[in-house]
Amino acid sequence: MKEISKLLDYRPEIKVLDATIRDGGLVNDFFFTDEFVKELYQTNVKAGVDYMEFGYRASKEMFDETKFGKWKFATDEDIRSIVGENNTDLKISIMADVGRCDFRNDIKPRSESPVDMIRVACYIHQIPAAIEMIEDAHAKGYETTCNIMAISTSGEQDWRAALEMVAQSSVDCIYIVDSYGSLYPEQIARICELYNEYAFKYGKQTGIHAHNNQQLAFANTIEAVGDGVNYLDATYGCLGRGAGNCAMELLIGFLKNPKYNIYPVLQFLQKYIVPLKNEGLIWGYDVPYFVTGLLNQHPRTAIAFTGERRTDYTEFYDLMTVKD
Amino acid sequence: MKEISKLLDYRPEIKVLDATIRDGGLVNDFFFTDEFVKELYQTNVKAGVDYMEFGYRASKEMFDETKFGKWKFATDEDIRSIVGENNTDLKISIMADVGRCDFRNDIKPRSESPVDMIRVACYIHQIPAAIEMIEDAHAKGYETTCNIMAISTSGEQDWRAALEMVAQSSVDCIYIVDSYGSLYPEQIARICELYNEYAFKYGKQTGIHAHNNQQLAFANTIEAVGDGVNYLDATYGCLGRGAGNCAMELLIGFLKNPKYNIYPVLQFLQKYIVPLKNEGLIWGYDVPYFVTGLLNQHPRTAIAFTGERRTDYTEFYDLMTVKD
Repeated sequence: MKEISKLLDYRPEIKVLDATIRDGGLVNDFFFTDEFVKELYQTNVKAGVDYMEFGYRASKEMFDETKFGKWKFATDEDIRSIVGENNTDLKISIMADVGRCDFRNDIKPRSESPVDMIRVACYIHQIPAAIEMIEDAHAKGYETTCNIMAISTSGEQDWRAALEMVAQSSVDCIYIVDSYGSLYPEQIARICELYNEYAFKYGKQTGIHAHNNQQLAFANTIEAVGDGVNYLDATYGCLGRGAGNCAMELLIGFLKNPKYNIYPVLQFLQKYIVPLKNEGLIWGYDVPYFVTGLLNQHPRTAIAFTGERRTDYTEFYDLMTVKD
Repeated sequence: MKEISKLLDYRPEIKVLDATIRDGGLVNDFFFTDEFVKELYQTNVKAGVDYMEFGYRASKEMFDETKFGKWKFATDEDIRSIVGENNTDLKISIMADVGRCDFRNDIKPRSESPVDMIRVACYIHQIPAAIEMIEDAHAKGYETTCNIMAISTSGEQDWRAALEMVAQSSVDCIYIVDSYGSLYPEQIARICELYNEYAFKYGKQTGIHAHNNQQLAFANTIEAVGDGVNYLDATYGCLGRGAGNCAMELLIGFLKNPKYNIYPVLQFLQKYIVPLKNEGLIWGYDVPYFVTGLLNQHPRTAIAFTGERRTDYTEFYDLMTVKD
């Protein structure tokens, strides 16, 4: 059992990463206004958030620029237009997807970029490709993470093999990613133990990125905190794909490091997140996401379903559980 | 750490109690249609739910019958009009509040009533009065529980004193009630250990009734399952006071006893819970409830605030944290 005193104290090593633009961008195709992104940046600075992720560094050869907002591509120039020289304690991250990022050309040396950290996202069968990107980014001077997605679809032997490889790379942090929101806290506890076993052996950190399909994103995140995980993803008002993520307000309320401030978080919610909801953007817990989480499935079918504002949940359940 | 195998297996002693009418009644002043209550009853039977709570047995001397729906008073006659002889495996419970129930007159012997279980709700300073009601109900043939509310406002020494008294009564089950939704899972783990220490010593069961102010109602409930708690409260679609409760769909999805069925739960959600939301009934997670949960306060101020559909969260935070 965790030490109760830890709830009143804090671990200075903990880092909070705001993934609102990146995971929330999956909800609105990255069409955030500059005002939104600038205010979010200022809010993160005031709230004491440690990292802000500005989006994906997707290849413009692979994705049509007319179909996405600029944060799908999160260029150094666009980030610089928001943060200037970023003379703050807030670090900047971007996500680079294995197979979707022309990293040799599109990621410049850190000395020429406003970005501090490259987060490499991959599936478990792409580990060697992820390590190649991590080494490239590390050589260019960046902090790096490896975010192995959809871990609930692999078993412990595969995790061990993947972790052994990644932990020996130059990576700084290995993320537990519950893409489908299917994991319960006691499973998270076991996964944390496993990730930490490999990460700590090679002097690496671990992180968690949770989804809220079963209303467990916050619970799983604080479970991981108690298990020694230091890098924590959250989004304002849970804004993220499907059921969304661990809510920033809940996480900042939970953490006791006095550098974190809840007030600017609440200000941003009321000024910028509530309007998105009122304008009709759809995210957050709903029954179809619970069903895909329960069944350990990708949320894409649920996203299409809630996108039509359908509530015939049994039809959805039938669709997801059809046996043929 | 809990045994992972327990996630795939089940404990036959676990009982699920549907508190939708009772806790949800606090949202709509108990004005449920007969159709709603009848369908909920049928749904619970089909879903394998163990207990259905029909409301409070409030004193008609104390509360104006014109201001509340009938489930505030949940008479034997009104319950019988829904369940007939209740020739099912579903048991019927009502809640009796200490000081608000004329239990000597209004609770008849079990042999004359459709009710199986009386749940006595009290604050920690009302334990002797609660025990008096428990002994009365027990003598009349009912199963009984003691639901000690707002435990997050007392300390361990008080809990121990209260539990020692209650556990020695004729009560069958002692409930952990996180009225303010302020407790984190690791606190729940410690409270379960404490409640179980006293309850098991005297051969009693323990239960949990959670609120969702910090999106932890389900997480806290399954934490309690892992800690040996057998009586679990849930409501359909979280329908309950303020941020609501542990969602029935999540709980039924989690439990592996084959007697539980998710399908009728989804049917009820789409036919009866979604319309309530669309008609403007207000419940469920929102920032003001998070704030009262974080501050360990009664949600009444947040209920008034969300009732006006206000989203000026910082005003609310200011109000709740004013120092004078």
